[in-house]
Amino acid sequence: MTEKKAKTTKVSREKETPKQIATKIDNMAKGIVTEIKKGIDPEFTTQQRGRSNVEFDEKKGLLRLGEKRTTRNFLNVGHAKKFMQTMLVSAKAYDYLKHNKTASIREIYYELKHTVPNTKENTFEDQTESDSCIVDLEHSVNTIREKLNLHANPKGTLYGDVVLKDKVHHNDKFNCGKLGRGGWSIMSRLEPEEIEIVSCNAKYILVIETAAMYERLVEERFPQKNKCVLIGTGGQAARGTRRLIHRLHKEKNLPVLVFTDGDPYGWYIYSVIKQGSMALAAHSPFMACPEAKYIGMTLDDIETYKLQNVTERMKDGDIKRAKEMMEYPWFQNKEWQAQLKKALKEKVRIEQQALANKSLEFVATEYLPTKIKNKDFLP
Amino acid sequence: MTEKKAKTTKVSREKETPKQIATKIDNMAKGIVTEIKKGIDPEFTTQQRGRSNVEFDEKKGLLRLGEKRTTRNFLNVGHAKKFMQTMLVSAKAYDYLKHNKTASIREIYYELKHTVPNTKENTFEDQTESDSCIVDLEHSVNTIREKLNLHANPKGTLYGDVVLKDKVHHNDKFNCGKLGRGGWSIMSRLEPEEIEIVSCNAKYILVIETAAMYERLVEERFPQKNKCVLIGTGGQAARGTRRLIHRLHKEKNLPVLVFTDGDPYGWYIYSVIKQGSMALAAHSPFMACPEAKYIGMTLDDIETYKLQNVTERMKDGDIKRAKEMMEYPWFQNKEWQAQLKKALKEKVRIEQQALANKSLEFVATEYLPTKIKNKDFLP
Repeated sequence: MTEKKAKTTKVSREKETPKQIATKIDNMAKGIVTEIKKGIDPEFTTQQRGRSNVEFDEKKGLLRLGEKRTTRNFLNVGHAKKFMQTMLVSAKAYDYLKHNKTASIREIYYELKHTVPNTKENTFEDQTESDSCIVDLEHSVNTIREKLNLHANPKGTLYGDVVLKDKVHHNDKFNCGKLGRGGWSIMSRLEPEEIEIVSCNAKYILVIETAAMYERLVEERFPQKNKCVLIGTGGQAARGTRRLIHRLHKEKNLPVLVFTDGDPYGWYIYSVIKQGSMALAAHSPFMACPEAKYIGMTLDDIETYKLQNVTERMKDGDIKRAKEMMEYPWFQNKEWQAQLKKALKEKVRIEQQALANKSLEFVATEYLPTKIKNKDFLP
Repeated sequence: MTEKKAKTTKVSREKETPKQIATKIDNMAKGIVTEIKKGIDPEFTTQQRGRSNVEFDEKKGLLRLGEKRTTRNFLNVGHAKKFMQTMLVSAKAYDYLKHNKTASIREIYYELKHTVPNTKENTFEDQTESDSCIVDLEHSVNTIREKLNLHANPKGTLYGDVVLKDKVHHNDKFNCGKLGRGGWSIMSRLEPEEIEIVSCNAKYILVIETAAMYERLVEERFPQKNKCVLIGTGGQAARGTRRLIHRLHKEKNLPVLVFTDGDPYGWYIYSVIKQGSMALAAHSPFMACPEAKYIGMTLDDIETYKLQNVTERMKDGDIKRAKEMMEYPWFQNKEWQAQLKKALKEKVRIEQQALANKSLEFVATEYLPTKIKNKDFLP
């Protein structure tokens, strides 16, 4: 029952139109104006973030924010500047939505930065200030910044038999499997009102950590031979890339397999794609893929494929991360605990590209096909 | 006369086929085998790199390597391992060329790493070792690694009315102005035998440092309104991106305008695109665009457009870089000396995105068009 309700909420949040979001900002602002007119200290409410309010929803397999809320009052010397900043950001986002403009989070910072007339006070001193207002606004109107027409830098590449249509840009329609070996450069935001997934002729999505492995699999024609879509994240997946994986997964019912280096950093990249991240816990319903599976690299691969010669020593940062990950509720299963224990015991890591030690083709002709055939995945 | 001769050499190096390059490696190796058979200590010769052998060719406006050469002997304890490594890399590159395979520089490292039989000695301990052999081989056979079928990671995006054809990948043919707002993800290597520039309907190339400014100009439909091609470098341009700019410039006779942040780092990005880099001085003929012009940001823009409020303090690294750049022969003109002096005096920098302080559209409707109309460029 609860689950059904939550699902309905999630779907409706994902499907909210720019007009609906603009209305939510407008309502929030009108509430504040009413308070001012009534002589009441105006109050801005948002969700509390940070580790202490992050929960792992085991049933759905998602990180999410808890119920704690935080308020900010205008008539509080400690809050007044932040309050003013939040209003500036809210008004500007409203403006973008009304005029079908989008902006990077750096641009909105620069656009809003000015000296308050008759003072020496700047509206913002630093982008971290406007960034934190954006996060407040997202959580206050319960949406993601992409739906506020804001975005960070793009990163990530798509290759495969997927036809996309950019409905607000000349209605461009293109097949991402017919762009040579380069592939499509994934945009920083790709909401359904703008980018339509017209069709997708694939059996699964293979998400790849390194750009070079992505290029290897394209060169080997792996997507054609295995009917899959490749998404190269180039390290930790950017928001646009996560959103695209999520959308392909949900809209086209495609399973997601994640292929990273065999080290805590790579495994963490996987977990962010699967369950979401702590920093963006409120946004998991827009971005996470709880059914994703991990295909490799695992530390067991080292023995299986005799790769002892091409391992690397784990760095201190990796060791620290592995220890932290062992405690996370979403790593509490025997398979991942075993990997993390092994990592801490042996202190080695293995890169995706180390498979080249067998041969360049090995990853495409042996490693991935065997794992897929035997469903040899980590949860 | 000298110039004409040099030009001929350059063109022929650029047009060398994989077969011709393979033959060069083969000849080098045969020479070594002959020396061994004759009982002579085998010798590997390559060009000397490093600052002391880098020259600025003022006539052509290119950085290039001088005439100094360096040799390595097999029967020298200090050289023997490196000699062996260079032969391994040479043989593998020859192999790639013969079998039409390409590999990342990380892959060739992993592919060649093994323990020498009956010893505890590894062929390579670290990728820096194989990387330096690749550089030796490039310089020895006088070509670029892309023509040895090797590449580093891809980075960079192309947007505009350019039709490309990937001749070795299903003959994919696509227009990079019809891929929605994402654009084409530039490959790590794109040699003419593989990637053909079929047509290009544009008046100039605008190279942009930041991904967010690239997205801004795409959103503003700047390429359509101004008949230009956009190339986003995402910081320092990757080799594939430089090669593409060079090829569009040479093959399609397109002027190159470079648009970076107004700081020493951005200006250095420009100079690498224009004259080449010190590290890759030998490769300038494949990558540089000596006729490129700089459109902005300049420190004079701060006054002209009243951006005093949105400048930033230069960091120590910027100051150090500015001092170094003042000494470089290719920055010895009054315009750049004036910029660098101003930077060191005022210690401020200005980002491309700071133009958003005027309005989001300002860069597309005012800043760039005015500069282009008035030919207000730095050399």
